[in-house]
Amino acid sequence: MGNCNQGFKDYFCRPKDTNVRFKLTFVCFVWQIAMVILFGVFVRYDDESDAHWVQNMAQNNITSAVENEFYYRYPSFQDVHVMIFVGFGFLMTFLKRYSFGAVGFNFLIAAFGLQWALLMQGWFHSLDPLTGKIYIGIENLINADFCVAGCLIAYGAVLGKVSPVQLLVMTLFGVTLYAVEEYVILDLLHAIDNGGSMVIHVFGGYYGLAISWVLYRPNLHKSQNLQGSVYHSDTFAMIGTLFLWMFWPSFNSATTYHGDGQHRAAINTYLCLTSSVLTTVAVSSFSQKTGKLDMVHIQNSTLAGGVAMGTAAVFMISPYGALIVGFCCGILSTMGYLFISPCLEKILKIHDTCGIHNLHAMPGVVGGIVGAVTAASASESVYGKQGLIQTFDFTGKFKDRTVSAQGCYQAAGMCVAMAFGIGGGAIVGAILRFPIWGDPADENCYDDHVYWEVPEEEENQLEGVPPILEYCNYATNNPEDET
Amino acid sequence: MGNCNQGFKDYFCRPKDTNVRFKLTFVCFVWQIAMVILFGVFVRYDDESDAHWVQNMAQNNITSAVENEFYYRYPSFQDVHVMIFVGFGFLMTFLKRYSFGAVGFNFLIAAFGLQWALLMQGWFHSLDPLTGKIYIGIENLINADFCVAGCLIAYGAVLGKVSPVQLLVMTLFGVTLYAVEEYVILDLLHAIDNGGSMVIHVFGGYYGLAISWVLYRPNLHKSQNLQGSVYHSDTFAMIGTLFLWMFWPSFNSATTYHGDGQHRAAINTYLCLTSSVLTTVAVSSFSQKTGKLDMVHIQNSTLAGGVAMGTAAVFMISPYGALIVGFCCGILSTMGYLFISPCLEKILKIHDTCGIHNLHAMPGVVGGIVGAVTAASASESVYGKQGLIQTFDFTGKFKDRTVSAQGCYQAAGMCVAMAFGIGGGAIVGAILRFPIWGDPADENCYDDHVYWEVPEEEENQLEGVPPILEYCNYATNNPEDET
Amino acid sequence: MGNCNQGFKDYFCRPKDTNVRFKLTFVCFVWQIAMVILFGVFVRYDDESDAHWVQNMAQNNITSAVENEFYYRYPSFQDVHVMIFVGFGFLMTFLKRYSFGAVGFNFLIAAFGLQWALLMQGWFHSLDPLTGKIYIGIENLINADFCVAGCLIAYGAVLGKVSPVQLLVMTLFGVTLYAVEEYVILDLLHAIDNGGSMVIHVFGGYYGLAISWVLYRPNLHKSQNLQGSVYHSDTFAMIGTLFLWMFWPSFNSATTYHGDGQHRAAINTYLCLTSSVLTTVAVSSFSQKTGKLDMVHIQNSTLAGGVAMGTAAVFMISPYGALIVGFCCGILSTMGYLFISPCLEKILKIHDTCGIHNLHAMPGVVGGIVGAVTAASASESVYGKQGLIQTFDFTGKFKDRTVSAQGCYQAAGMCVAMAFGIGGGAIVGAILRFPIWGDPADENCYDDHVYWEVPEEEENQLEGVPPILEYCNYATNNPEDET
Repeated sequence: MGNCNQGFKDYFCRPKDTNVRFKLTFVCFVWQIAMVILFGVFVRYDDESDAHWVQNMAQNNITSAVENEFYYRYPSFQDVHVMIFVGFGFLMTFLKRYSFGAVGFNFLIAAFGLQWALLMQGWFHSLDPLTGKIYIGIENLINADFCVAGCLIAYGAVLGKVSPVQLLVMTLFGVTLYAVEEYVILDLLHAIDNGGSMVIHVFGGYYGLAISWVLYRPNLHKSQNLQGSVYHSDTFAMIGTLFLWMFWPSFNSATTYHGDGQHRAAINTYLCLTSSVLTTVAVSSFSQKTGKLDMVHIQNSTLAGGVAMGTAAVFMISPYGALIVGFCCGILSTMGYLFISPCLEKILKIHDTCGIHNLHAMPGVVGGIVGAVTAASASESVYGKQGLIQTFDFTGKFKDRTVSAQGCYQAAGMCVAMAFGIGGGAIVGAILRFPIWGDPADENCYDDHVYWEVPEEEENQLEGVPPILEYCNYATNNPEDET
Repeated sequence: MGNCNQGFKDYFCRPKDTNVRFKLTFVCFVWQIAMVILFGVFVRYDDESDAHWVQNMAQNNITSAVENEFYYRYPSFQDVHVMIFVGFGFLMTFLKRYSFGAVGFNFLIAAFGLQWALLMQGWFHSLDPLTGKIYIGIENLINADFCVAGCLIAYGAVLGKVSPVQLLVMTLFGVTLYAVEEYVILDLLHAIDNGGSMVIHVFGGYYGLAISWVLYRPNLHKSQNLQGSVYHSDTFAMIGTLFLWMFWPSFNSATTYHGDGQHRAAINTYLCLTSSVLTTVAVSSFSQKTGKLDMVHIQNSTLAGGVAMGTAAVFMISPYGALIVGFCCGILSTMGYLFISPCLEKILKIHDTCGIHNLHAMPGVVGGIVGAVTAASASESVYGKQGLIQTFDFTGKFKDRTVSAQGCYQAAGMCVAMAFGIGGGAIVGAILRFPIWGDPADENCYDDHVYWEVPEEEENQLEGVPPILEYCNYATNNPEDET
Repeated sequence: MGNCNQGFKDYFCRPKDTNVRFKLTFVCFVWQIAMVILFGVFVRYDDESDAHWVQNMAQNNITSAVENEFYYRYPSFQDVHVMIFVGFGFLMTFLKRYSFGAVGFNFLIAAFGLQWALLMQGWFHSLDPLTGKIYIGIENLINADFCVAGCLIAYGAVLGKVSPVQLLVMTLFGVTLYAVEEYVILDLLHAIDNGGSMVIHVFGGYYGLAISWVLYRPNLHKSQNLQGSVYHSDTFAMIGTLFLWMFWPSFNSATTYHGDGQHRAAINTYLCLTSSVLTTVAVSSFSQKTGKLDMVHIQNSTLAGGVAMGTAAVFMISPYGALIVGFCCGILSTMGYLFISPCLEKILKIHDTCGIHNLHAMPGVVGGIVGAVTAASASESVYGKQGLIQTFDFTGKFKDRTVSAQGCYQAAGMCVAMAFGIGGGAIVGAILRFPIWGDPADENCYDDHVYWEVPEEEENQLEGVPPILEYCNYATNNPEDET
């Protein structure tokens, strides 16, 4: 830092070391090697993806190879996969100078999270007690994508303010917590949550918000000039929005039981989403004196219906019920951007870059409540006797549960998700505060230059960065000057 | 407007009120509430998406839950859904400063249109006379997407020249007209049109052109500086083009009868599209002295084959037949951009922003003719006895219809589509002329600033807008100055 | 050229004629007409896409129309289709001023290549010797997409340095060579290569490299200013990367045998790709003193796992085996960008615009070796008796082949692919050297202005082009000045 003269060094040139060369390399290699070893010890193909299947078909009365589960889950899986990588990735490219970080780090943590999720969820759900192995098939891949979605939601809260190493640590713990809360909610409480309003969105939302709360930066205004969007970055973000919006019916129906379950879940989600769009536009326009629409609302609040329909998608909520949920969530989410996010920041000191509180946490809570109420009011006349059993999976040791009890367990599930999110996030946030993770200085937040080689000729076009900072950037990153 | 001195006020500062705050909010809320009520009264899940299905399976000899229609329509549905939101949305982002409007308003009107289409098409096609209810399943969702496609085509003609309120009105009437003409063509005339050359493209094309004709702006040259593209906006538009191009085989086969019907429709459309690309490139290059290709042609005319194969996709037109149709339509559509569009504007006073006449109307007419001729020349030797009955659905009261009669009814269908498009468009255009809808002034067309909060730092980069207009813009939109 | 005074004419104003008006029009028309004629003579619908199918169902014990192959291949086909057009197309948009060429020419040559591939592959694989016809169905469409992938890989090596006419010639020969080597490898040698590590990637990679070697331009540094990326072009390229990455499991499983084969191929590819991402990030970060990530690596090397799993995807390589392959390929591919590509250019005079040697050729070779070793070490205990026969298709005249023999044939297959690629590429490169194809001058490489109408206002923003060249450009392209 010798190049910085003492006068402004103290203020401008924070001696944050953002060079993650050794840390990132180390973490990536060690974790990937660990994955290889753990997969070697634990993971095998399941019955339907093993070469022995052709032999077992005759024994299991399967007459045709196309009865393989692959054909009835894979198209949904691919839609969910697109949501994870293109949907979440591009949705976060709205910042003027953080597109590489948005789409690139999203890619990195999703790729790592998927592997870890296969293991964690496998230990809890697919472990064969006899052989001690996890047998994976297409449904495991979908569930791993779901698990990673929770962590990517959390990324939205801290977008631009953390280093890739922090993100990997956050994902490691996030996936672990997810697997546990999922086990508690779906297996122990036996709540229904195929689209993950509670398990994914409430957990992921509060996990991210708690982390952001612990990592609060009082001087974040120093990078305010980079906190907005530019014209093209907003257009890129719409790619993410639309792929999330279009494929959300696949998301909510991907793991639902076959037949009418998947069919109904897709219809409900589709209707709920259409309704969100109109009320989002209405509130967005109304909130401005000029009546102009705000891209932030269109990019995010239009999706709130999909989040809120996560739990109840498979229930007989009926088409107009789905529309009503979307109606309310579009309003609630847009209101959140207008009124609640500023309050969260000012009062609770929670800075939420992408507004995940409005897009995931609140609509997730709504989804949980809608799910509990809809479950509690289910009846044999609406579902049919077998339909009721199948929808709520009242089998095995849960065969005597009543729908009102189910409603209570649904509500309990939401509380568990929230508790795991807030508690886990606070602890993980504390871990991420250690000054070893290479996080950016306050004045370098939302700036791809810190962790990415950015094309040179564009650097000069970077607007609003005072030359003095550029100079300090150079000094900070120039390795010869480091002590 | 007091800030504008009298001298240039009359000319530059047109007192158009583009503040749609109350109108847009009102329309969105009222219509969404109307949808909730109407869905509550009329719409229910159909047999295969109702929880009773599991009970009915045994009675209906269904042995496995994967026999649910969902599995054989949903992948096609998702492809069509991508075409509607990403395909149409991004195709229209080519304008340098109207990407938000293109992709955002496309999103809004599609989300509204889908709900209204489910109702309108439901009343005409899926209403159970006993219960008075509309029972919806996956096929209704596909058909709603199709219906909305017609309205989005019409949006292409008036892109940049209308307000979001006008678009919602246009969609309300467009969907209504569509449902009626679809009923006349498919049910009364019993024409075959699975990919909608006539029902979607001819109708949507002429509907949009008629509206644009009524709304003609003699002084549109005032916003000429925004009527072109920039480098990145053309690249964004290619996202739309490619998703439309790739998924068009799904579009034309989505509602075709199962088995060889869907299979053949996909192959024909695929072949037809490949052929369009080569002739479009050839004509585009030949039309320029320098031999340079024009992005407008590549973005649009390459798709003409998909439009033209809409009716005949399911027929035994044979692979080379499909190639020939694509061959001709690539040429015709590119020629349209070169020669017909300028004439339409000069002579008939029809301004067509996206060139829907070249991409939808003309190829749709070609598709209708090809369909009529192919139907009339069908024979048992080519289709097989059962194949002929299945392809043309010669069942029930149409079981004695001959193929030559079918050809005539196909041709009649196209005339009906065109009549509904032109007639309906003229009337709706007249409604849209009322000075209450908040449409932009001539000098503010193609400008996202009118209806969107555009990122600030970009505003200064806006090229070609004389400062005087910026000043007036400010005056117009500054609510304190309004009377 | 009269406007150029003699002084700099010799140096700056190379008399290259890049006006492809007549050539491109001629080639497109002639080839498309040839396709129509050849399709007319040879191509018919196959059994499952012919209208007679409904009649044949009863005879073939098919009870339901949804048993049509269409339903079990079409979703995979669409994923592959997206990879070809959006994946390859957008991956190449990374250059600052060659996005039109990347996505547009990719579109053109793919659309032509698909038709020619249906014919070429049809003659070798689907020709009915009795009728002399090629019967096409959904599997032919997938295989045509695969074949075209080989040619698009080759395009990556010469991106920005050739004319569209050269690309069409390259594709014509590329598809022809592909069909022959595919026949030798899959039919004669009976090697297994469903995802095409050898057939597609090794062939395509070396084909492109050999062409680039023959077309080497010693003065390419003249257009060095256009050889980099800009911020938004790198973001566009990530669209390509992600769609390739997400849908690669569909690519490798698209033509695999139904049931466990497709299921396992998808899982293996998915795992292999996740592992590539982490090691790519690790090596990319480690390679820079500042620890910053390079978008070139993230865009390309993350995909190496998919390439390398092409052959072995269907084998029982086991989940951790897939992770190990991805682990190694991420490292190898990134190392390639860092060390091998510069050497290739300096020592062997092979310039490789997109780095296809690192993304396709080398990982393809790894994939071939992995496939050979995995095949040779297969056993009945791992696959089951029937599973072994089904996986390696040990039927008909290959029913007595041992797994070790299979391993040898796999290795032989890779040598054949490489030989066809290098040999064929050298010959085709020689053809492309004729000065008649309208290729750009050294100083006009990577510039869309040569073959595209580029929006005007952007031209002035073109950075780094000395005004003198702009002037010459004008002179060159101004037809009045031509002699």
